[in-house]
Formats: sequence, structure tokens, C-alpha cells
Amino acid sequence: MSRIAYVNGRYVPHREAAVHIEDRGYQFADGVYEVTAVRGGRLVDEERHLKRLDRSLGELKIAQPMSHAALKFVCREVVRRNGVRDGIVYLQVTRGVAPRDHSFPKDAAPSIVVTSRRTKGAPQKSVDEGIGVISLPDQRWARCDIKSISLLPNILGKQQAREAGAYEAWQIDRDGNVTEGTSTNAWIVTGRGELVTRRADSTILNGVTRLAILDIVARQGLTFVERPFSLAEAKEAREAFLTSTTSFVLPVVLIDGEPVGDGRPGELTRKLRAAYAGQIEQ
Amino acid sequence: MSRIAYVNGRYVPHREAAVHIEDRGYQFADGVYEVTAVRGGRLVDEERHLKRLDRSLGELKIAQPMSHAALKFVCREVVRRNGVRDGIVYLQVTRGVAPRDHSFPKDAAPSIVVTSRRTKGAPQKSVDEGIGVISLPDQRWARCDIKSISLLPNILGKQQAREAGAYEAWQIDRDGNVTEGTSTNAWIVTGRGELVTRRADSTILNGVTRLAILDIVARQGLTFVERPFSLAEAKEAREAFLTSTTSFVLPVVLIDGEPVGDGRPGELTRKLRAAYAGQIEQ
Repeated sequence: MSRIAYVNGRYVPHREAAVHIEDRGYQFADGVYEVTAVRGGRLVDEERHLKRLDRSLGELKIAQPMSHAALKFVCREVVRRNGVRDGIVYLQVTRGVAPRDHSFPKDAAPSIVVTSRRTKGAPQKSVDEGIGVISLPDQRWARCDIKSISLLPNILGKQQAREAGAYEAWQIDRDGNVTEGTSTNAWIVTGRGELVTRRADSTILNGVTRLAILDIVARQGLTFVERPFSLAEAKEAREAFLTSTTSFVLPVVLIDGEPVGDGRPGELTRKLRAAYAGQIEQ
Repeated sequence: MSRIAYVNGRYVPHREAAVHIEDRGYQFADGVYEVTAVRGGRLVDEERHLKRLDRSLGELKIAQPMSHAALKFVCREVVRRNGVRDGIVYLQVTRGVAPRDHSFPKDAAPSIVVTSRRTKGAPQKSVDEGIGVISLPDQRWARCDIKSISLLPNILGKQQAREAGAYEAWQIDRDGNVTEGTSTNAWIVTGRGELVTRRADSTILNGVTRLAILDIVARQGLTFVERPFSLAEAKEAREAFLTSTTSFVLPVVLIDGEPVGDGRPGELTRKLRAAYAGQIEQ
């Protein structure tokens, strides 16, 4: 089965899927995206992804490319045409094609690309034994709450993590606090058993998996607080983990090579992963 | 004459010029660019643009797409095929096409796009009467010295300027100092006649026109200092101006609606523009 992509109104073979060189996504990073997990052919937390997409588009004043109903149809059709039962849908919207000029074009129509592929999720070893993160200065811009394709600092950070043999890089703000990973949100459980993650202000992306975990936390009545935590506090924590659409919940057992807690996945981390997995497999 | 673009080894009609949807420039802003002025068919300050391109590629660890000799040939050929005597050449290099994953792909070849078009430069009215800028917080990332296509904050700033009826937005750092415009460098002449521009550290792009003006300043033995200047100091300045590849030297006569000096283009600004214009028309 050859892969199919949706590009600006047409379903095309993936290898031929192209956009114009003056698409503002290509010249200015003037666009936004969403990655949604597919489980059993179903789009996980689809409404939340669409709501966040609306917010990102609104913040950048990019027009909606089509209605939610139409977007849902296209996403399902791309999933179906690619025979994906477990994997992801990638959706990208840019301000469209226009002669290169920084200010917004008057009459460009937004470009839209949707792809889908099978993925296996995080390796079982990472789930069972946990993963390592490194820390590095957060070099990103001031509006990380917008899920834009302006991801250059993120890819540089991820690459640095990979070269260090780590799964992810936790980015540290000027105050020494962890903002988030390059494509994941960051969490700790303190020695007192308090679950902590940063408030979703303009310094982090409000992850859909983050929100789903917060729902579980509320339902289970867990001790929880939204506040910044420092790198030092994370290294002293009882547990640490990260969340994302593709990783779900992954235990962080090493930070800059130093073990978190006893160096093994924490109890609460495992419970939250199990609860989340149970929820999305429903 | 229909426009021609160079895309990854082929000269193609501009309207058909396309890149793959998984080009990392489109999904991650993982690329760099240069805009070079063309005057009388000649590329202005070409060596400096190539040198800066090398630096940008090096900082991002993107491979050189081709030799300088080959790049020069392609740029000339695109200029020629588009019949451009006075205008610009736009050159963009990205890390290439690869299945979407944040970390660097192992075997992607860099993508290269070259376009050229006629431009008129800044309107004569702007040269004669000067232009206005607004100020806004600098929201960009920490590596503005890299000429990357990660330009989302820049376009948002430029758009804000246009909506305010201004030509450009001067971005202000946390210390209240001007970094630069969204696509131009910022300069002032103090009441004591001292020419000031910010040092080319990681907070600004080291403009090629900026460097050309510095050469003129040195040759003419003008009083000059590289240091940060505050927005307040700029508003109190005797003169202000901006420089860029497409604007050359433009007098700034309004900052946030307040006149700079007597509200007319300054003497030194005019001299520098004339000297630069004389140099590039040679």
C-alpha cells in the first residue's frame, strides 16, 4: 500500500506531495500543526487537538482552512487511505502562498497538509526502564504556547539530546526552572508525594496528553500543583516523567546522567501511564 | 517573460516550483537563507552573503549544498533567466527531505531554492522624507545571529508595524535596548554626533549592508561606537536610520509616532546613503 497525503484539496501519492516554494510555511515558518494519535483507527482526543489548532490559528490570525467537520473527514480519510490503525495523523496549516514579503498577504488562502503513518509508540524498554533527559538553556521565542512550525530551537535541542544518548532535552529558563522538553511536557513527583508540572503560560505548549493526565489526576484526587520547578528540584525528585501525544507517559530516570529517585520508573508514573493507556484503548 | 526558479538541480517555471511536504524547511523551519541585491545585473556584496550563508549552515550543521562557484553560477543563471537587472536574488537552503522526526536525519541531502525578481527598492518618498518605526518587545529566540527561516516573530512584528502605518518595528530587549528591526538593522546618531549601532552578538543578524556601512564609516573616520542603545536614547537622538539589503539606508524620522530630531532625515544618514549608493552603482 503506497502512502497518500492530503495537500490543499487533493489526495496525492506521498512521494509526489508538494507545496509551492513561496508557501509561507517554507519561507517564514508561518504556520501551525497538530499531531494526533490514532488507536484502533480512532483519533485520540480529537476535539482537544482541534480546539488547540483553532487557538494557534487565532493567535497568528491565520484563517481556518475548513470547518471542523471537514477537517475530521479529511483526517479520517487520510487515516483510512493509509491503512493506519495505530499511528499518528499530522496536520499542518500555513498562511498560504504569496510573493515573499514579511507582512501578511492580503488574499492568500491557507495551505493545508494532512499525512498519516503507522507508529509503534515508545519502545517497551523505555516504558519499563525509563529514559534519560539532558538539560539545556531554553533558547526559544516568547510564544511557545502557539503550536507553530517555528521549531528550529526544538530540533537543535532534540538533536543535542540524541547525541548525548538521551531521549529528550529539558529546557531551562533564565530562572533555572524547567519549561518543558523539545516535544514533550515535563513533570515531577516531589519527596512529599506532590505531583508538579508547570502552569501552561506562554513558555510552554499546553500538551493534549498533559490535559488528559490532569483530568485523571483530578478524577483520582491526587495531590497536585501547577508551578515552576527548578532543575535542582527535578534532580532531587522522587519521580519524574514526560508526556506527549506519541510517547503518552514515559518515566524519566536520568537527568543529566544523574538518577532520579532510585533510578527506576516511579509508582505514580506507572499508575498514570496505565490509567491513560486504559482510557485511550477504550 | 515567465519567471523561472531553481529548485534542487532544475530550472523550473516559478508557478510550478515546489518542494516536498516533508522538506524540513516546511515542517521545522530547519533552514537558512540569503537575500542579495542585484544592481545592473551584478550581485551586490556577494562574497559577504556567501560567507554569512556558510556561517548559518555551519551553526545549524547543515551540509553545504554545493560549492561557492556553483552557487554563484546558479544565482547568475536565475538572474539571467528572469531578466533581472535591478532586483534581488533569494537563496534558501534547508536540511532536506526526511520522514518527520525532530532529530537530524542521517542521510538527507540539503534542499536548495533560488529565485530572483525585479524590485524598485525603497520608495523615493521614504528616502526623501524618512519612515516611521514602532517599538515592540523582542520575542525572538536566542540565536538571531543565524539567518534562519524561523521568522515567525519577525513577520508578526512587521505586520504590527504595517497595521500601525509604520515601515518597520524596532524590537526591544529585556533591558529596554533596541536589538534591531524585523528585517533591518537599527542605528542612531546621538546629540554629540556619535554614530551608534548594536554590536553583532547573538541578539541580532549581522547585516551585510550593516557591514558595508561600517566600512564606509571607517574609511571616512567617523565617530562611531558599537554598543546597545535604549529606546529612550533613540527617541532623543539627533538622527536615526535603518539598513538592509533591500532598503539600503533609510532615515527613521518617527519612533512610536514621536519625531526624531527635527523630524526630517538627518545629515549623516543622507551622506551614508549616498556613499553606499555610490559604492554599489560602481
